Order: sequence, then C-alpha cells, then structure tokens
Amino acid sequence: MSLKRIDVGILGATGIVGQEFISQLDSHPWFNLVWLAASQRSEGICYKDAAKWHLSTPQPPAVSDLIVNASVPDRAPKLIFSGLDASVAGKIEAEFANAGHTVISNARNYRMESDVPLLVPEINPEHLELLPRQATERGWSGQIVTNPNCSTIILTLALAPLQPFGIKSVNVTTLQAVSGAGYPGLSSFDMVGNVIPFISGEEEKIETEAQKIFGSLKERKVESSPILVSAHTTRVGVLHGHILMISVGFQTTPNQNELIEAFKTFTGQPQTKRLPSAPTHPIVYTDMPDRPQPRLDVDINNGMSVTVSRLRPCSVLDYKFVVLGHNTIRGAAGAALLNAELMHVDGLIV
Amino acid sequence: MSLKRIDVGILGATGIVGQEFISQLDSHPWFNLVWLAASQRSEGICYKDAAKWHLSTPQPPAVSDLIVNASVPDRAPKLIFSGLDASVAGKIEAEFANAGHTVISNARNYRMESDVPLLVPEINPEHLELLPRQATERGWSGQIVTNPNCSTIILTLALAPLQPFGIKSVNVTTLQAVSGAGYPGLSSFDMVGNVIPFISGEEEKIETEAQKIFGSLKERKVESSPILVSAHTTRVGVLHGHILMISVGFQTTPNQNELIEAFKTFTGQPQTKRLPSAPTHPIVYTDMPDRPQPRLDVDINNGMSVTVSRLRPCSVLDYKFVVLGHNTIRGAAGAALLNAELMHVDGLIV
Amino acid sequence: MSLKRIDVGILGATGIVGQEFISQLDSHPWFNLVWLAASQRSEGICYKDAAKWHLSTPQPPAVSDLIVNASVPDRAPKLIFSGLDASVAGKIEAEFANAGHTVISNARNYRMESDVPLLVPEINPEHLELLPRQATERGWSGQIVTNPNCSTIILTLALAPLQPFGIKSVNVTTLQAVSGAGYPGLSSFDMVGNVIPFISGEEEKIETEAQKIFGSLKERKVESSPILVSAHTTRVGVLHGHILMISVGFQTTPNQNELIEAFKTFTGQPQTKRLPSAPTHPIVYTDMPDRPQPRLDVDINNGMSVTVSRLRPCSVLDYKFVVLGHNTIRGAAGAALLNAELMHVDGLIV
Amino acid sequence: MSLKRIDVGILGATGIVGQEFISQLDSHPWFNLVWLAASQRSEGICYKDAAKWHLSTPQPPAVSDLIVNASVPDRAPKLIFSGLDASVAGKIEAEFANAGHTVISNARNYRMESDVPLLVPEINPEHLELLPRQATERGWSGQIVTNPNCSTIILTLALAPLQPFGIKSVNVTTLQAVSGAGYPGLSSFDMVGNVIPFISGEEEKIETEAQKIFGSLKERKVESSPILVSAHTTRVGVLHGHILMISVGFQTTPNQNELIEAFKTFTGQPQTKRLPSAPTHPIVYTDMPDRPQPRLDVDINNGMSVTVSRLRPCSVLDYKFVVLGHNTIRGAAGAALLNAELMHVDGLIV
Repeated sequence: MSLKRIDVGILGATGIVGQEFISQLDSHPWFNLVWLAASQRSEGICYKDAAKWHLSTPQPPAVSDLIVNASVPDRAPKLIFSGLDASVAGKIEAEFANAGHTVISNARNYRMESDVPLLVPEINPEHLELLPRQATERGWSGQIVTNPNCSTIILTLALAPLQPFGIKSVNVTTLQAVSGAGYPGLSSFDMVGNVIPFISGEEEKIETEAQKIFGSLKERKVESSPILVSAHTTRVGVLHGHILMISVGFQTTPNQNELIEAFKTFTGQPQTKRLPSAPTHPIVYTDMPDRPQPRLDVDINNGMSVTVSRLRPCSVLDYKFVVLGHNTIRGAAGAALLNAELMHVDGLIV
Repeated sequence: MSLKRIDVGILGATGIVGQEFISQLDSHPWFNLVWLAASQRSEGICYKDAAKWHLSTPQPPAVSDLIVNASVPDRAPKLIFSGLDASVAGKIEAEFANAGHTVISNARNYRMESDVPLLVPEINPEHLELLPRQATERGWSGQIVTNPNCSTIILTLALAPLQPFGIKSVNVTTLQAVSGAGYPGLSSFDMVGNVIPFISGEEEKIETEAQKIFGSLKERKVESSPILVSAHTTRVGVLHGHILMISVGFQTTPNQNELIEAFKTFTGQPQTKRLPSAPTHPIVYTDMPDRPQPRLDVDINNGMSVTVSRLRPCSVLDYKFVVLGHNTIRGAAGAALLNAELMHVDGLIV
Repeated sequence: MSLKRIDVGILGATGIVGQEFISQLDSHPWFNLVWLAASQRSEGICYKDAAKWHLSTPQPPAVSDLIVNASVPDRAPKLIFSGLDASVAGKIEAEFANAGHTVISNARNYRMESDVPLLVPEINPEHLELLPRQATERGWSGQIVTNPNCSTIILTLALAPLQPFGIKSVNVTTLQAVSGAGYPGLSSFDMVGNVIPFISGEEEKIETEAQKIFGSLKERKVESSPILVSAHTTRVGVLHGHILMISVGFQTTPNQNELIEAFKTFTGQPQTKRLPSAPTHPIVYTDMPDRPQPRLDVDINNGMSVTVSRLRPCSVLDYKFVVLGHNTIRGAAGAALLNAELMHVDGLIV
Repeated sequence: MSLKRIDVGILGATGIVGQEFISQLDSHPWFNLVWLAASQRSEGICYKDAAKWHLSTPQPPAVSDLIVNASVPDRAPKLIFSGLDASVAGKIEAEFANAGHTVISNARNYRMESDVPLLVPEINPEHLELLPRQATERGWSGQIVTNPNCSTIILTLALAPLQPFGIKSVNVTTLQAVSGAGYPGLSSFDMVGNVIPFISGEEEKIETEAQKIFGSLKERKVESSPILVSAHTTRVGVLHGHILMISVGFQTTPNQNELIEAFKTFTGQPQTKRLPSAPTHPIVYTDMPDRPQPRLDVDINNGMSVTVSRLRPCSVLDYKFVVLGHNTIRGAAGAALLNAELMHVDGLIV
C-alpha cells in the first residue's frame, strides 16, 4: 500500500504502555517515531537514561538517543500516541487536540465523552464519525480517539462474533496480569503467592465501555447498547495476559457449532484493509481444554489476537467460554496503533 | 460436654488431606488418633519416615512413631477419616463400611450416591437421615458420610445465608489454590507466573453437588434443589485458599442490607451444638474492599470460616460478591472433622 | 522475674517493621505499648485508619484505637522502638536520644558509629558498654542501641557457634524475601517469575556490620574483627525468610561433628537470662537435606531461631552450610525487642 | 558454507529438552529432523498427540505429524540428539553408539567417562580427540559426545575468559529455574512463594564436570584441572534461566579492567568457524547493576549467550560477579546442537 510515511510521537513514553508503543513502532511501515515526551523529571534527558526499560525485547537503538521532551505540543508531530496516566491525561491530551494534533489515547479520561470514539477497529469503525463534533463542540483543530480499557477490549473482541446472534447479557470474571497496573503498580509484597479480588474502578469501566463500543451510531451520536454486562475483576501473579471467564445469554439460544464457527471466521476492517498491525484472525479458537494459558498463548500473532476456548452450555445464561488477551499489546499499545492505522488508511489524520 | 473420647484412624494418611487430618486431630477433645493407613509403599514403616511432611506446623510427635497400616479394616478403630484418592477410595471405603466402620470421607466416589449424605453441617444436617438406607440397601453394618468438593463447600456455605431469600441461579468463577490438587499435583513448570483456566471435572462437581446439598429430604430421599449453578474454574499460584467470584439471582430481588445482615448472623447446628471445630461465625463479612485475600485471610478462625465481601448489585443477576475459604481445612479435612463431630454428638457413631 | 512493667512507643509504626513491632509487643510481659508515631500524613488519626495492615495475624484491638503521634519526643515514653526509614531515622532518633529516651533502632544510620552498640544479644552483649560514651561525646541524656541489617543478624547468629573454632573467612550468598524491602518495596512487575541479583548497598552492610559485631571491646572501643566477609545478595519471590548459602574458612580445619554439635548447643545471655522473646535454641540444626525452606521453616520458635542444615566440607574454604532466618522477626523487630529485653533486665533503661 | 545437509533424530523427544531440540532444529541450515523416539507409551503415535507441548513457540507443523518411534537404532538416522532421562540413557545411548550412530547427549551418564568428551565448544574442542578411544576400548562403530550439566556449562563459559589469568578456586551459588528439573519436575506446592536450597547431586556434578572441562588433553586422556570448585545450589520460582553468583581466586590477582575486557572479547571455535547456533559473543557483559535478570535477559542471542555483570573485588577470593544463562538452551539443547555443529564442520560425523 503506497501510504505516506508520517512522523509520530509518544506522550508518557517512559511508562509500561509508552515502552510498548516504542516497541510496536519499531520498524513500523507507516509511522516514524521521532518525538517522545514524559514527566518533568525526564525532560531534556536521553531516553535511555530517562526510562527504566521493562521489556525483554531490547530498546530500539534509534530511540535510546532521542531527547525526552516536555509534554507540550510545540514541535511535536501531528500524530501522537498517548500512554499518559489518567491523572494528567485529561489536560495534556486536550492541549494537543486543541493545537491540531491527532491524539490516539490509551487513557480513560475521554473514553466515555459523547463526541469521542471509543474504538475497536474490528467492531465499531463507524464510531469515527463522531470526530467532526470535536471541532464543532470543542473548537479543537485536532482530535482525540481512544481505545478501551485492556479488559474491555479483550472482552468485546471475544463477544463481537457472537453479536449477530443477539447477545442479551454477559457475566465476566477477569484474572488480570500485573502489567495492567503500570509500573511500579502492585507491590510484590501483596502479590507473592496471592491474588487480589479487587481492582479499583475496573468493573465499572468494563460494564460501561462495553455498552458504548457495541452502541449504535445515529446522527453522530452513539446510543449505548442495551446488553447487560456484569464484571468481577481480580489481579493474579501473571506478568502479561488477562484471562476472562465469560457467560453469555442470548435473545434466543443459538447453535453451539455456529458460535464456534463465528469465532473462527471473524474479521473486520483491519483485516480487509490489511492494516500492518492487524492479525489475520483477531480470534484464535483452540480445542485444547486447558488452554489458553498466559505463559503459552499470550504472544499469539504478536499479541494482537485473543484466544478463545471451551465454548460450552451455561446452566444460568446460555453459553460460557474462556478468553485470553495480551493486556499491554491488544489491550493497550497495539490497540491504539491499530486505531491510528485505520485512521491513516481512511485519511482521517490531517 | 461429657462425650466419650473415641479412637479414630485415617485412610490416605500420607497425602495432603491426610496430613491436614493429622494436624486437625492433634489435641482434639473427642477423637484420639491411633491408626494410620496408606498405600503399600508405606506399610509397616514409621509415619515420620513414610510421609514427606508438607505443613508448616510441626508433625505431632505422637503421630511420628505410629506404624503405617495396610488399608484394610482389620484392627482399625470404628471411626475412620478418609483422605483417599478417588482412584482407590471407592473400593476401600466400601470395605470399611461393610466391616462396620463409620467412614467420614473426603473422596468424591460416594458423594452423589442417593443413600449417602453429602454433608455441610451448617446447611443440611438432616441429610444424615439417609444413613439407615445404607444398611438396608447395601447390607453395610457401617456407613459412609461424605463432604463436598472443596469449592462446593465454600460456595454453599456462602450461599446458605441467602437461601431463605429464594435463590434461583448462581454463576461462580473460582480461583483455586494449588494445594487443592494434592501432592505433587500441578507441575511448577505450569504454574510459575501462570494461571490455568481449567480443572478437569471440577465444574461439573460444583454444579451437581451444590444442588444435592441444597436438596430437600423427603422420605429418606434427597430431591435436588432446582437452583441453577454455573461454574467456571481456574487454578492460580496460591498455596492455600480458594477465591470465588459469585453472582446470584433470586425469585424476587431482596434488600442488600438484609443479605449482608444474613451473612453476619448466619449459624447452624455446629454452632448451637458447640462442636469443637465449629467457628462461632461460619461466615465473616468484611467491609474492606480489597479483601479477602488468601495470604491475609485464609486462616481466619483456624481456617473454618469463609470470608465474604463486596456484596453489590449485579446487572445480570441480582447481587454479586467475593468469597474466600481454606480449601484443605474448611474445604476438606476440617469439613470432614465437623461432620464426624456432629455425628458423634448426635450419637450416630455406633 | 519480677521486673517492672514499662511503657514503650514505636517510631515508624505504620511500616512493615513497625507493624511487626506491634505484633511482637502484643501481650508482652514487660513492655506496654502506649504510644505510636508515624509520618505527618498519619498524625492525629486512629492507627487502624492510618496503617494498611500487612500481617496475617489480626491487628491487636488495643492498638487499633491509639492515635498516631508526630515523631517528636514530647509525651513519648522512655523506651522507644524505631522502625524508621533510614532517610529520616538519623535526625529523629538523635532528637529522642538527646531528649533522654532509649531508642532501640532497626535503622542503619547509627549502626557503624563508634559509640553505638550494634547488638546481637547472643553474640556481643558486652558492646553495651559503649553506651556511656554517647553521654560523654554527644551530650545525650538518652541513648541509641541498634540491631544489624536482617541478613547480617542471620549470618552472624549462624557463625557465632563457629567463632571459637577460629573463623578466618566467610563467603555468603543470600536469597532474600521481598518483605525485607519494606512496603511497597519491590514492584510485582519485577518479581513475577523472576529473581533480582542485586540489592543496593546490602553487600557492603553485611560485610562491615559482621566485622563490628564480632569485634572485640577494648576500653570502650570496638575493634573490628579481622574475619574476611564477602557477600553476594539476591532478591527472590518469597514473602518472609532469607536463605543464606555460606562457606567458612578457619585458621585450622575443625572437626565436622564438633561444628554440628556447636550449632546444636549454642546459647547466650538471652537464654541464661530467660528473656521473654529468646528462643531456647537460637539455632535449630536439621538433618533433612532439602530443608530449611522459607515456607515450611521460617516461623520456627516464633521466627526467633535460625535454622541450619547440610554442614559439609567445602573444597575452596573449609565447610559450607545452609541457613534460614525470619527477616522481619529475628532480622528486625524481634531482634530489637530482644535488645530491649536484655537492656531492661540489665537495668540499662533508666 | 557448502556443508552437506544431514538427517537427524531425537531420543527423548517428548520431554522438555526434547521439545527444545525440536524447536532449535526448526529451519536448521544443516540438520534435517526426520526421526523422533520416546518411551513405549508414545510409540506409534503422532508426535502432536504423544507430547504435551510446553514451549510458548508453536510446535513446528512438520514435526507434529511425525510418528514417534521406539528407542532402538533400527532406521534411525546417523546423527542422534539425546534428551533422555539418566535412568534410561545409559543403556539406550550405548546401543545407538554401538550400532554406528553419533549420539550427542545431554544426559549425565557418560559425561565423566574417560573416553567421552564433555564438550563446551568455546572451551575444550580438542577433547573431541578422545573419540577414537570409544572404538578401540568399547568396540563401538559409533560414538557418544556429551554436554555438561546446565549449571556447569553456564559456569564454565563465564570462567573461560578468566582462565588465562590463572584461576585457582571458584565458589559458586546457583539460583536455578524450575525447567531444569524437567517435566513435571518440582511440585507447584513446593515452589509457590518458596525457594528450595537443595538439588540432589547437582553440587557434585558442577564441581567434577568443571574440572574435566578445563582439564588438559594429554595422549588422548583428559587430566582434570586442579581448579578448586565449590558449589551451592538452590531452586527458585523462575521458569527459565539460572543465576550464578561467583567468586574466583587467582594465582596472582589480575587487573579488574582486563578481566572485564576478557569477558567482552571472548570467542572460540564456534565463532571462528561460524557455526549456525553460535552467538557472535558467547558472553555479554552489562554495566547495569541490577542485571542480568531471568525475565529480561535470558533470551539474549536466542538463549545462546550468557550475561555477566558486576565484576568487583571479593574480600575472600579475588573477584566476584553475576552470571545468567538459559538452562534449557545454552545449558542443554542448544549446547548439544553446538556440539553437533562443531563435529559436523570438522567432519567427525561419519
């Protein structure tokens, strides 16, 4: 595809999501990473000295010598990925959008705003039609697009193939990896040989974000889906990879094999438009009963596919099944990257 | 209480549940441990040499020097606790029951038999009325009483206070400790930094056993409860303590505070009859949102209480909450001991 | 022993060592905990609301309602235990000593000062004779006594019985529990399925502190022991309990059985003076080859004994062996408590 | 290099080392995997059904459909990699060697035999000259070459650059990953939040094997090196990657910078002969003080390099430093593969 290669930058470049952005953008065919920003403490320092590198893949040498900038639009490139913490993302992302930048954000701050797309490219690409409202209603010359919370992306991707069968209700329990809490995140004192059955604010995010993602677009407004979602969230001693145990109720009970077939054949715009980060199959369905497991399966298709198994009848709702997704790739940096790729190919980054 | 002190023995004395039996029986006011049996390999050897001791509490010295017997009734005492593996429990437990012993079993083999009580003393003590059928129908001069699977006990104890409000359906996801799989159980290769979203046969056990436990007794038969139970089970890197994330639907939605009050005030026969192993409160309700946690709370009331927290509305069923129980104590050895204590005080061990 | 019961206080009461102090002081026969202090954030608040309780033993109810004080001498009792962080301990502990308090400190700040005892009561109780120099040289009306770094205490206790045989050199590698780093301490992101072969400043502390502890007292000065100590330190995913792999070289190679006998029979002043926190045997020698293990053995004798095993010839030095000790009890709060008990029985708290 | 591509087989193909062999041989430029053998239980079954796949890299599809053979020479190819367990390796490997096969073994059985090379290609390639003795003394038409125990390889590779400076003694403590114990290996019950300071037989293997590897070849005999080696071994909750904490004494204390330079510039025959599995640098020296860590560094150079850090003075011996190596790659399957590559390029597989 002969798309123009464009410069990109990263806000929150030293955090775990920021580092995953750097890793995902290394050798990207369309995006050229030229600009990094982080908190005041890192400003003016070489990236290699500013960040404690947390990934097992080496830091790209070209990035190591970039000087970390202040988080101001100034000479930042047009396209900005934001891995900012929610405590500062609200203000900074708005400044960039106002200054004409396209902000592809992983932060939660604008996700539920009525004029901001909460995008999962395989599911609701049409929600990008909300964008013009940001100019009209906020006067921004730029724009903000968000991806959902890590658990919500994994959940909604796994539900998307089942949507045509008429989902009525969803009960989900998550077993979430520690990388989802950022760095330093959880104390090892709390996690050694332990699980914590509580993640502050997480259940509400999953429930409301899922309804927006599956919402229908009418006259540039998203009407939330009436699907009932109930989430239980827990933290477990896993590095990367959220496991979701899901039960689903339908308007009318569908055929089990048809659901499995729907998982296996599911695709969306990222696949038809051959976006660089899009996996051929967003969902991998496995017949191995004790899989997926974080250690063995989290990196399938570079962490961009979710793995589903054990679809079986549920005696309370209709069916239940197991899902695994990579929380910092498909659930964060990779999700944002896919959003940007879709917008770029659609000519929405201007 | 001036109850006669009686001799007891243990089948499967070298396994994890067997060791927990030994620990629980140490200094027991009613039961005097005099007899141990294990597989052929251990026969005739001192217990301290036969068993690799897995508990952090020291092995009781009086037990260390007991000689391990073959698993035959011979000179075994009347009251026998069985921590046998299901692969051998069926045959051995029947031999003991046939020979006139009362077998208090933790194995799954007889749990669903129509003439065998599946007992949780706080919930269904009247199921002991099934026992005479074992003499009539099987010709046994002894008897077998079983306790449920570890997750089922913890689940049903947490549901019991809500039963009077009319439970219709239950969705539960478990995060189960590795000690539930026995020793050596799961490979550390599989568990380091991992979770396994599958435990063979576990979901079926939880679903069917819960219905029997809540079943009503009519003419010496248990009619299974119509409560719908759907279970998702996972294994996590925790030593002791199963976490359960539970959603419950009712005939009519009850008041939230009344449910919490029901948790706090719940008691049963073990409490009124002051059984030695009975906790004052079978359920501890905590207001701390990030609790219970296995590391911090599993040993509450010597592992005999389950801890409940975060009862809150569920958007799919009616309410949801978090539960923790000690799987090898309240979920196994301690449960069997409580069964035996109830039977002893009721004069059923003859 | 008819010793006067005295009031005590804790500096740094909300941290992990502070909490362990509270736990150890619960029902103490000589010391009555009446005063707690912590950082400004906690001042004026009930302890139960100021501290996130990290122990699996319940918070003593009498402590829960104590109001947390500022870290100033004011109305603090005479005897003060300090679990302060090194960043603030220097200044605050001096203020208390200057104001007439006896400060029993776990912080590293004064450990290597020439007029401050670095005390392990079984090893160097005579170092308390340094105390009068604090009045003379610093003008303090009170005094500071310190206990060593957690690894150093465990190391020196295990070496003490071998001292009479003429130790020349010691090579030790530690596998240290995460609780040694305080709370939140290490990120779970760094510790899941990982070990970190580096603990900042730890190796130096072990090497220098051990030499002071084994130093000889001459005219109120401690002359460091010429024993050569080389330490390698690592952090592992264990909650409590440091493992030490030790090789020792002697002036002349002693007999192996005599060394083992020395471990088994070792005692010191805490034992002869029957201090309340003193274990009967400061060292437990076990013949089980795969022991000690943190999970199984760390709580032996309430965490106040260290366990030694596998004394065997070393082909480089003379002998090597394995040691385990509880880092927050014998290695911190329990160590300080034992120091205070020795001083109280010796009439040094005035 | 225009080397003839040859067929190879694997003994013990379903174990962890066998699986690593399969993974390492996938797309190998010289070796073509055509034959697999395992225990009777797997005989005649498709590999994909015979083996529980433990690696996170997918099973090569070409291997999945190979039928597992009995462990007899029959139609096995000339070159055989053995990942057999020591309990059976002795007999089976001899049968293959006797039948004319070249057995590249990871088992311990023949390592210390005087006519069998214990090979680390960067260190002692000349030990291959022992091979003709196997024909003379045993009458084998084939031959056996072994690689050392995982910890020994990592240790000797790290010592090799220092050898020219005159090593006199070595004290090493290992923190070994669970994958080194095979599958199922250690029970998760023993490893959750625990470390085990004992690995049966491991310390002896390290001490004796290291002396043979550094031994000098004289008239087709290896004279063991007089270097004194003392090993302490422990097991930690890490999946892959052994950490070694090493102290080294020299005849004369060398210069610190020269040692670091020696690490950085070390190479051997695998590098000069450009063997396909040889890393450019067998040793990576890092300046980051808290590295290497298993999670971040174990896969450096596809797991074929060991990482060294923190070379610093040791107060007992001369210098001490930290080493990490991948135990199932450089410490097992990759080591054997490198041995085979060296022999192939040297024309020793006939």
